[in-house]
Amino acid sequence: MQNNRLVIVGGDAAGMSAASKVRREQPDREIVVFEKSQYTSYSACGIPYFISETVKEVEELIVRSPEEFREKYHIDVRTMHLVLEVDTDKKRIRVLDKEKKEESWEEYGQLLIATGGTAFCPDIEGHDAENVFGISTLKSGINLENYIEWESPKTAVIIGGGYIGLEMAEALLMRGLKVALVNRGPQVMNTLDPDMGEIVSEAMRNLGVTLYLEEELVSFEMNNKRVSAVVTKKQSIPTDIVVLGMGTSPNTKFLKGSKIALGAKDAIKADAHMQTNIKDVWAAGDCTETLNLVSKQHIYIAMGTLANKTGLVAGSNIAGENLMFPGGVGTAVCKICKYEVARTGLLEKDLKKLGIDYVSAVIVSKTRAHYYPNAKNITVKLIAEKNSGRLLGGQIIGEEDAAKRIDVLATALTHNLTLQNIIDLDLSYAPPFSPVWDPVQTAARKLINEI
Amino acid sequence: MQNNRLVIVGGDAAGMSAASKVRREQPDREIVVFEKSQYTSYSACGIPYFISETVKEVEELIVRSPEEFREKYHIDVRTMHLVLEVDTDKKRIRVLDKEKKEESWEEYGQLLIATGGTAFCPDIEGHDAENVFGISTLKSGINLENYIEWESPKTAVIIGGGYIGLEMAEALLMRGLKVALVNRGPQVMNTLDPDMGEIVSEAMRNLGVTLYLEEELVSFEMNNKRVSAVVTKKQSIPTDIVVLGMGTSPNTKFLKGSKIALGAKDAIKADAHMQTNIKDVWAAGDCTETLNLVSKQHIYIAMGTLANKTGLVAGSNIAGENLMFPGGVGTAVCKICKYEVARTGLLEKDLKKLGIDYVSAVIVSKTRAHYYPNAKNITVKLIAEKNSGRLLGGQIIGEEDAAKRIDVLATALTHNLTLQNIIDLDLSYAPPFSPVWDPVQTAARKLINEI
Repeated sequence: MQNNRLVIVGGDAAGMSAASKVRREQPDREIVVFEKSQYTSYSACGIPYFISETVKEVEELIVRSPEEFREKYHIDVRTMHLVLEVDTDKKRIRVLDKEKKEESWEEYGQLLIATGGTAFCPDIEGHDAENVFGISTLKSGINLENYIEWESPKTAVIIGGGYIGLEMAEALLMRGLKVALVNRGPQVMNTLDPDMGEIVSEAMRNLGVTLYLEEELVSFEMNNKRVSAVVTKKQSIPTDIVVLGMGTSPNTKFLKGSKIALGAKDAIKADAHMQTNIKDVWAAGDCTETLNLVSKQHIYIAMGTLANKTGLVAGSNIAGENLMFPGGVGTAVCKICKYEVARTGLLEKDLKKLGIDYVSAVIVSKTRAHYYPNAKNITVKLIAEKNSGRLLGGQIIGEEDAAKRIDVLATALTHNLTLQNIIDLDLSYAPPFSPVWDPVQTAARKLINEI
Repeated sequence: MQNNRLVIVGGDAAGMSAASKVRREQPDREIVVFEKSQYTSYSACGIPYFISETVKEVEELIVRSPEEFREKYHIDVRTMHLVLEVDTDKKRIRVLDKEKKEESWEEYGQLLIATGGTAFCPDIEGHDAENVFGISTLKSGINLENYIEWESPKTAVIIGGGYIGLEMAEALLMRGLKVALVNRGPQVMNTLDPDMGEIVSEAMRNLGVTLYLEEELVSFEMNNKRVSAVVTKKQSIPTDIVVLGMGTSPNTKFLKGSKIALGAKDAIKADAHMQTNIKDVWAAGDCTETLNLVSKQHIYIAMGTLANKTGLVAGSNIAGENLMFPGGVGTAVCKICKYEVARTGLLEKDLKKLGIDYVSAVIVSKTRAHYYPNAKNITVKLIAEKNSGRLLGGQIIGEEDAAKRIDVLATALTHNLTLQNIIDLDLSYAPPFSPVWDPVQTAARKLINEI
């Protein structure tokens, strides 16, 4: 008889979304989950808000505990188990029980790899010092919170000006630290075009963050096993703690000897069904590549939304359904203090690389009718294909109630809408919610004159 | 030589959008606008916020004054001029100068009718009493504000539980009046399904509004030329003022003898170019019908967004371009105190009438990650076609940051997206903005199990 055992490697968003879906569809199937930490199904995206003490208890970030999965869902969750190797020929994996320090081989009928990603750090002296923090796992978040609580650091250097860097800047400012940020590019947020990134850079400075732009981490200065300064080519920046925001790497090193195909940034290649190149081996979440529906290229992007979606799709298919994950459009949103930043689709530099002829326009409007109290500024940039007018990307910066408007643009991008289509949309309007022309439509009206 | 004179009847959103567009494209063309009031281009939707004193000065609601149009745009705006008759055979209109009390015939080369709508009131004794207020024109709003200021009414009865009724309830509560609302149906908001309308009814009661449901205005009791009570079949409700929220009627009575074709509720029939059945006669805004893109039926709906859109389209075509207005999907949004209500598409009762087989689901989620402060409840109802899963309608009720999510559903409706398409959308997520599955996607995930 065929082995029907479902083994899942990784017990966070993607893995447990899949496990839950399979359990709903197949009440009697054996499901085993190996998770290297002691936590399952938590919101990694919530960690900055735990650090800032906006969220008081770490438990609030946990959607379901291992006990709950075991008892209510009869899913055999084994925490503190690290998977070291996958042998797809013999359909088995090598697992380390970190507490017992014992290794064993576990067989699978079907395997789902959902090992997530880890904050990237170059392999330099001090990268594993106790005052250097990635915050890609709940454990790392707890470590940082404890360190702030017990060691009362006064200064922080954040390396990298992406979403995590910005959210962590907010969190550390809220804890009263003096925050500096080292960023390779000339503006923070390299997921925005430079003109929009500059607005965010200026906003960060207004909040009191010292920006070191066009600088890169070269080494750490050490003092008593702790990092005492971040060294760039231009200077040495003394600091009490270092936070890594240099991007995420997929946790796929353990697959290096296997036959499972890797793609962009060594993320796992999976098709629209979330199947890998090997029969009965599936992958989902931050350890996989994602198809960008606008560029039609497979890229690596770590996103809670995509992890949940691909986990659900993998689980559905493992349970015998036929569901596909079409891909994403690169939508992301971020709050830093009073500012909101959102983006979707491609940047000007992406389009140049792809050789696509485009036009772009930027408008400044208001989040509400101009006469309604608390109408905030909102800056919208749209990029569209020359001639056809098809939307290719959108970027929004503003204050309260600005950013969520990106969702209309994400929907438009996914379904190939043109600027005229956007102008024609019957979007909601009342003075407390929007100007009569929604700012995304005002931007489309400006840009349509350029195509 | 052909008469190239553009005559526009009505100087608010639609008329002045068109006039401005024509002026941009045709700098030398003669443009004459006849406006019955002394105002142009104001936000009628802002009137409730002027009544509530959220907006302090009535001038804030005026986008551009007649003087500005005359001086900066060389548009010959003639305020206090009422158009009485259109003679399309002789291409002329009969106009009353209300100040000079003189009538004259004015010729046109092209005519745009943009006369808007008026708050409906049955023709009963007292409907024109000085303490009965429609608020469809700036003048009527100013009258109400003055009456509250000078006469200090203590109680108000609002007739009709639609958007305007709800917004006016908020405004009058904010001015300290005791507010009652008479509504024909068993719940307020008959643009929602009854299950969702009931939630709004309950919210209104929580705010202190006395609801008289399944009751209808029969007559007014009069005292010294003022209405002293609203009489229904069941009772007499004493009141100091009456506010009309019984819907809007298109201002088309002056067209009754003309050859211009009228449709739903006597609104002007116009094609996608905003042309009427008569050559060189155009129409736009609240005096016209609108094609509902979901039902494919022409309906009457008065909306500032549609007035601006159709005005722009009419203006473009009058100026020789070729632009089309495809229609709307019935999107609307409304705030009443802390509550937000939004809707788009069709209701269950619409679908029953059309004989379309549908399924529906309601979910309750949060506006932000559950652990993030100020995450508010949001209730989402989706309706989809049985089998195909095509979205047919959406309704949202919630508190802060709930309602604008309707825009994704409006976009989805316009472009025939299915529930699976909605689930697949790459919507923005970060804990301050949304749960990882946006509430509209959570609703789609629930409903897709029913198709």
